[in-house]
Amino acid sequence: MEISIERLDAAAFAPFGDVIALRDEPSVMINRGRCARHHDLAALDFVDGGTAGISLFDGTPYALPHALDLVERHPLGSQAFLPMSATPFLVICCEDAHGVPVRPRAWVTNGRQGVNYARGTWHGVLTPIRRPAVFAVVDRIGGDGSNLEEYALEPAVRIVDTHGLTDASTR
Amino acid sequence: MEISIERLDAAAFAPFGDVIALRDEPSVMINRGRCARHHDLAALDFVDGGTAGISLFDGTPYALPHALDLVERHPLGSQAFLPMSATPFLVICCEDAHGVPVRPRAWVTNGRQGVNYARGTWHGVLTPIRRPAVFAVVDRIGGDGSNLEEYALEPAVRIVDTHGLTDASTR
Repeated sequence: MEISIERLDAAAFAPFGDVIALRDEPSVMINRGRCARHHDLAALDFVDGGTAGISLFDGTPYALPHALDLVERHPLGSQAFLPMSATPFLVICCEDAHGVPVRPRAWVTNGRQGVNYARGTWHGVLTPIRRPAVFAVVDRIGGDGSNLEEYALEPAVRIVDTHGLTDASTR
Repeated sequence: MEISIERLDAAAFAPFGDVIALRDEPSVMINRGRCARHHDLAALDFVDGGTAGISLFDGTPYALPHALDLVERHPLGSQAFLPMSATPFLVICCEDAHGVPVRPRAWVTNGRQGVNYARGTWHGVLTPIRRPAVFAVVDRIGGDGSNLEEYALEPAVRIVDTHGLTDASTR
């Protein structure tokens, strides 16, 4: 299977989680008008005694086209990725059909967008493109239980930048 | 009072919270060795029914020297600032003496460091320098109670870059 990379869009991504980005209008101005707060942009969801933690992920870039041969999901918690290097990354999700990931989709961020994968959503691993990148990750820390399921895709899904959305010149 | 800006350092900052930055060695390599996870870097602490949320703060830069005339604290929750614009900001804290902020200190980040203010720590408001900057903020969402105390500093504390640490050329 081959799929084309799309531009990340909050409405299209909604079944899989939240796009974390500045809204058109802030929720409130604080600090005597010098700071715009865009409030509560991700549905954090941690179960079985786990709570939110902050980690950093330092990721190696991937080449395109990308051969997606593995997806994973976290049954016990949401997982948010916040870009700290102002570089785009691929956001890859699948729907679930009775425990099997199906209908993969791939988006590219604009370099400033983050995402929060909803609890239990099949997704690809962190996939920076073009250059190494650091992300702050808000996911489940502590608690019991196994919070990682992996699923190998055989054959791999080929993810192609048909529309040139990952070219710096077009963003 | 006049104080000099220091270089942000995890040990010096420890009484006030956590510096969120890559460690010398990652906690674990994941994704077949393509991603270094630096795990659980901030002591998140939310009380009275509040839980972690993710917001974005879009901040206007401040000029130096900086006249600090207000500090605040959040008695019901920690507050983490994660830079998404790769720009430095001032981190300003005071000790507490029976409800009064005393002994202010000011640090500048290296542009990649975040901080997590411990619950109840007196701190200055978000203070980007040089240019506007966006931050992901992990703080208390929901729950009851008043989570903001402010304290006016009269006269203002003058925060000076005595050592030239905010010059781009020296970082």
